Amino acid sequence: MVSEWHRQGERVALVPTMGALHDGHLSLIRQAKEHAAHVVVSVFVNPTQFAPGEDYERYPRTLETDMEKCRSEGVSLVFAPDRNEMYGSDDEERPHYLSVRISGMNRHLCGASRPGHFEGVLQVVNKLFNIVRPDVAVFGQKDIQQWFIIRQMAEEFEHPVEILMGPTRRESDGLAKSSRNVYLSPDQRRKAPMLFASLKRVSDTLREQILKQDADSGEIPVPGTLLSGEKQRFAENGFKLDYFSIVGTPDLQPVDVIVPGRLYVIAAAAWLGNTRLIDNVLLNTRKE
Amino acid sequence: MVSEWHRQGERVALVPTMGALHDGHLSLIRQAKEHAAHVVVSVFVNPTQFAPGEDYERYPRTLETDMEKCRSEGVSLVFAPDRNEMYGSDDEERPHYLSVRISGMNRHLCGASRPGHFEGVLQVVNKLFNIVRPDVAVFGQKDIQQWFIIRQMAEEFEHPVEILMGPTRRESDGLAKSSRNVYLSPDQRRKAPMLFASLKRVSDTLREQILKQDADSGEIPVPGTLLSGEKQRFAENGFKLDYFSIVGTPDLQPVDVIVPGRLYVIAAAAWLGNTRLIDNVLLNTRKE
Repeated sequence: MVSEWHRQGERVALVPTMGALHDGHLSLIRQAKEHAAHVVVSVFVNPTQFAPGEDYERYPRTLETDMEKCRSEGVSLVFAPDRNEMYGSDDEERPHYLSVRISGMNRHLCGASRPGHFEGVLQVVNKLFNIVRPDVAVFGQKDIQQWFIIRQMAEEFEHPVEILMGPTRRESDGLAKSSRNVYLSPDQRRKAPMLFASLKRVSDTLREQILKQDADSGEIPVPGTLLSGEKQRFAENGFKLDYFSIVGTPDLQPVDVIVPGRLYVIAAAAWLGNTRLIDNVLLNTRKE
Repeated sequence: MVSEWHRQGERVALVPTMGALHDGHLSLIRQAKEHAAHVVVSVFVNPTQFAPGEDYERYPRTLETDMEKCRSEGVSLVFAPDRNEMYGSDDEERPHYLSVRISGMNRHLCGASRPGHFEGVLQVVNKLFNIVRPDVAVFGQKDIQQWFIIRQMAEEFEHPVEILMGPTRRESDGLAKSSRNVYLSPDQRRKAPMLFASLKRVSDTLREQILKQDADSGEIPVPGTLLSGEKQRFAENGFKLDYFSIVGTPDLQPVDVIVPGRLYVIAAAAWLGNTRLIDNVLLNTRKE
C-alpha cells in the first residue's frame, strides 16, 4: 500500500504514536497532512523504551477510539503492530544482536533518569522509518529530547525523511496535553500547570536580558538564582523535581551562558505523586 | 536517479565495495544483475571499519580502473562518495552521537581481533541502504562474519532488502581472491593457498563423519585433534594464525558438536608477514 503510493510519486507522512491519542496527536496529524498526500499513524506501545518499573503495563491502550479519531482526521493508514510483529516472540527464534547507542545527547534531561529510554525509542523509530519509508515524519515538541535525538538519527543514518516539530498543545490553563495526564488526581491536576508557568517565567526573564543587552556584546550569563528560585517553588508545592535545565542544541548539554542567535531549550520534568510530567519551551535568542 | 527507478517499479541491486575491484567483485556484480534491472556499485574505503594501525592508508585505491570495470559489466551507477560526504569533515559542524552496537555475533572470528570493525561496517552499510534503498544487496561469502552481521542488521532494522551471498572466487590454486593479495611477496603467495586447503580438509573430514553416522543418531562431536593438527601445520609454514574455528549460524559462536541439518562455518584468518588473509567454507550437514 505504502510502496504503491511511493511508486505513484505521492508523498507519505508518518506520525509515530503510542496510541491514547489526544488533541496533541491530532494536531500532529493535521500538520502531517499539510506535507503529504497520505498520513500513516503508527500506534505501538513500545516495550523497549520503558525502563523496568516504569508504566509500560498501565500505559493507556485505547486502539478502537484511536482508530476512530484517525478515521475522522482522514488518516490513510493506521499501523498497529503487535509486540511479536516488531520484535518476535520469546519462543520464536529471532534473537536480537544489534542496538543503537547514543552518546552525549541522552546524558541530561530525561536521558539521565530513564536509562535506555532513548535507545528504545530509536530502535522502534528506525524500524518504523524503514517499514513505512515516509518522506516526512512529525514528532511533538513536548518530547523535545526525543525530537532532537530522532532528527540526529535521521541525519546520521541517512534516512531520507524530513523531521518536523509539532508545537505542544495545551489545556486552557497551560498544562501540556499528555496521555499521562489521566493519571493525575484532581488536586494534582490543579497544581500541574505550575510546570509550564515556571518554564515561561524563566524564558521571559532570559528574553528580557537578551533584548536589553547592547547590540555588540556577546554571551549572556544565566543568573544562578534564576533556576534555584523555581526549584524551591516546586518543592513547596509538592512536586518532586527531576530536572530543570537550560540546554544548547543540538547537543542538549546544560549551559550557563546564552549566545544570541543559537537555539536553546528550557526543559523540566517533575513528579506529582506517581505521575511524571515533562514540558519545555524554546528560547528565542534573536535580538529583535 | 535511483528514486526514479523505484518509481518506475524497476528493481535495484547494490554491491557495496571498497574498490580495488577484482574478479570476486565482478562476479558479485553479475549475480546482482540477475536479480535487478539496475546495479549500483558503491566504492568507498570506509575509515570507520579500520582499527588504528590497520591498513586504511595503504589500502589500494584504483577508482578509474574500477569505473571502467563497472562500465563494461553494465553497472548503472557507481556511487563513490568522499569521506566528507559520508561523515562530514572535521571543520564542519556535523558531530556524531549515534553508533550501532553488536553483541555476541562479533565476539569471535574477525570480530575478536578487529575491535570496532563490524560496527564500522554496519555504520556505513546502514547509510548505504538508506541512501540507495536497494531491493537486493550482494556481499561475498569470503567476509562471512560480515555477511551474517549485515543480514542480521537488515532483519532487525527492517531494511526492505534481500541479502544475497556471492560465492568466493578463487585463483587456480585455491587462494581466495582479495584486494589484499597484492601485498603478498612471491614466497608468501606460494604458501597462501594452504589456508583454503586446510579449511577444505577439515570440512571433508567432518563431512565423512556426518555421512557415516547412523540415520537416527544426533550430534557429531568435533574431534579435538582435528583443528590442532591444522594449527600446527600453519605454524610450521610461517603463518601466524589468528583463528581457526567452527562456528554455528547465525550466532557465530564456536561449537564442539555438529547437529545435522544446521548450517556451520569453518573459518580461518592468518597473517603472512604483514598481510592478513581470511577464508571460510560452509559445512554441508545434510545426511545425503
